[in-house]
Amino acid sequence: MTTHSFSSKRLTIIGVGLIGGSLARALRRVNACGEIVGCGRDEAHLKRAVELGVIDRYEVDPAVAVSGADVVVLAVPLRAMATVLSQIAPGLAADVVITDVGSAKGCVVEAVRSVLAERFCDFVPGHPIAGTEKSGVEASFAELFDNRSVILTPVEETDSNKCARIRTMWEAAGANVSEMAALHHDEVLAATSHLPHLLAFSLVNTLASLDERKEIFDYAAGGFRDFTRIASSDPVMWRDICMENRDALLEVLAHFNNGLKQLEEAVHDNDGEAVLNVFTRAKVTRDRFCG
Amino acid sequence: MTTHSFSSKRLTIIGVGLIGGSLARALRRVNACGEIVGCGRDEAHLKRAVELGVIDRYEVDPAVAVSGADVVVLAVPLRAMATVLSQIAPGLAADVVITDVGSAKGCVVEAVRSVLAERFCDFVPGHPIAGTEKSGVEASFAELFDNRSVILTPVEETDSNKCARIRTMWEAAGANVSEMAALHHDEVLAATSHLPHLLAFSLVNTLASLDERKEIFDYAAGGFRDFTRIASSDPVMWRDICMENRDALLEVLAHFNNGLKQLEEAVHDNDGEAVLNVFTRAKVTRDRFCG
Repeated sequence: MTTHSFSSKRLTIIGVGLIGGSLARALRRVNACGEIVGCGRDEAHLKRAVELGVIDRYEVDPAVAVSGADVVVLAVPLRAMATVLSQIAPGLAADVVITDVGSAKGCVVEAVRSVLAERFCDFVPGHPIAGTEKSGVEASFAELFDNRSVILTPVEETDSNKCARIRTMWEAAGANVSEMAALHHDEVLAATSHLPHLLAFSLVNTLASLDERKEIFDYAAGGFRDFTRIASSDPVMWRDICMENRDALLEVLAHFNNGLKQLEEAVHDNDGEAVLNVFTRAKVTRDRFCG
Repeated sequence: MTTHSFSSKRLTIIGVGLIGGSLARALRRVNACGEIVGCGRDEAHLKRAVELGVIDRYEVDPAVAVSGADVVVLAVPLRAMATVLSQIAPGLAADVVITDVGSAKGCVVEAVRSVLAERFCDFVPGHPIAGTEKSGVEASFAELFDNRSVILTPVEETDSNKCARIRTMWEAAGANVSEMAALHHDEVLAATSHLPHLLAFSLVNTLASLDERKEIFDYAAGGFRDFTRIASSDPVMWRDICMENRDALLEVLAHFNNGLKQLEEAVHDNDGEAVLNVFTRAKVTRDRFCG
């Protein structure tokens, strides 16, 4: 483990779930924080996080939780972001840097701009491209971000020193950090993450409505399990992502529907060559990029 | 390893790939065969199978390969089945039982009936619900069928003793064997296997056509890799499956399209409750059946 320039006297995580809990564990691993304070709506859950050694202590009042913190991480569902921001605003220290881990960034930038107003510059929008289909602090682990990508989407007003600080935080957690524009992030993630989740949820929901559902799932093999794994993800979190990144999601879904329609027609018309072309191009592409 | 009643003096496998090779390895594990003979179109591939100890020897002429065999397993793509059957027909022994591993069964039953004619009763249609996205004998392994399902779809004419023999063969290979009607099998597998493959191939093909494809795949995380793993499967094999199980595939695809259309409308209409209902039902269903 290399030495990182990141250190925090008090780091507060709002939402100590899979992502928030794993970040806390990863930063502990390199002794980057004097103290890690947790906050959330469920006190039993926060107690469990203390027992597991993920956080040092917790507060149930968000404004108290961020008091004296030099770093605040918002790890809550996207649609809870604005409410949480307004709750923490009164307690924020002057030198604080605030960041988030939301899977869509355009909506977060808008929400933070309107809630934080003149302190908007203290906020660094971020998104670690990591996770599992599991939820909650029990599922968190220190290695979640090792060699994974974190995308920061600073805007013109963002304090560049604070952005650099969040970059070092994620590097200390093991991640590779890059930057891009929020709306571009949202297009890329709609394609690579949000659409696959929508399709997986939709497929399982449709199969669950068929008369043969019991047999269908009884005979599901490894391929089906892998394909539908993401349909075991947290429904509220993913509802928020799909609604908050609606435009980019609907756009890439339209592309998908066009492609699927063409493939369906090829199958219907018994055009094996066209079907083989699609399958071959897909295999070559996936083997190259994910092989 | 329990003792199984299956034994074969000479078992011939036409198509020594992932499935054929794994079956050979699984049967060797329990010393079920006096000799395992391989056959296929690529002699270098067959030599490799001998080197790996998967088969004892090979023949390039299918009729010679099945000569003296008491069990013949056809592990070739669905659309090669009729040709291979007509090639082996002259060499079949009187007491032979022939089976296949094709992923669709209605088409196989039809093809075999027309090619084998009065010897149709010697054929037991079968499908091991197991596999990986990899292909070829190098990817084969003895444990592939352990505790996995094998579905046999005998028809009225099928010799019941021969069907029982193929059941014990798969049990010796570690699998759990059940029986169902061929067309019912095809409906269930269209839902649980063929449609997911179609969707995965289609998604990767569509994303590969987008301008941002490089970035899309660069930022693909574990969820995307799992979701698209089956798009690395053998294109010819899957072209054959989709074309040969066309009716059942198009029917379940129509259900899928309806469900996706409703979900798309809910996202478009900002109906978060409807989206959450779909996601929740999918998660509950998957956790129950695949958890």
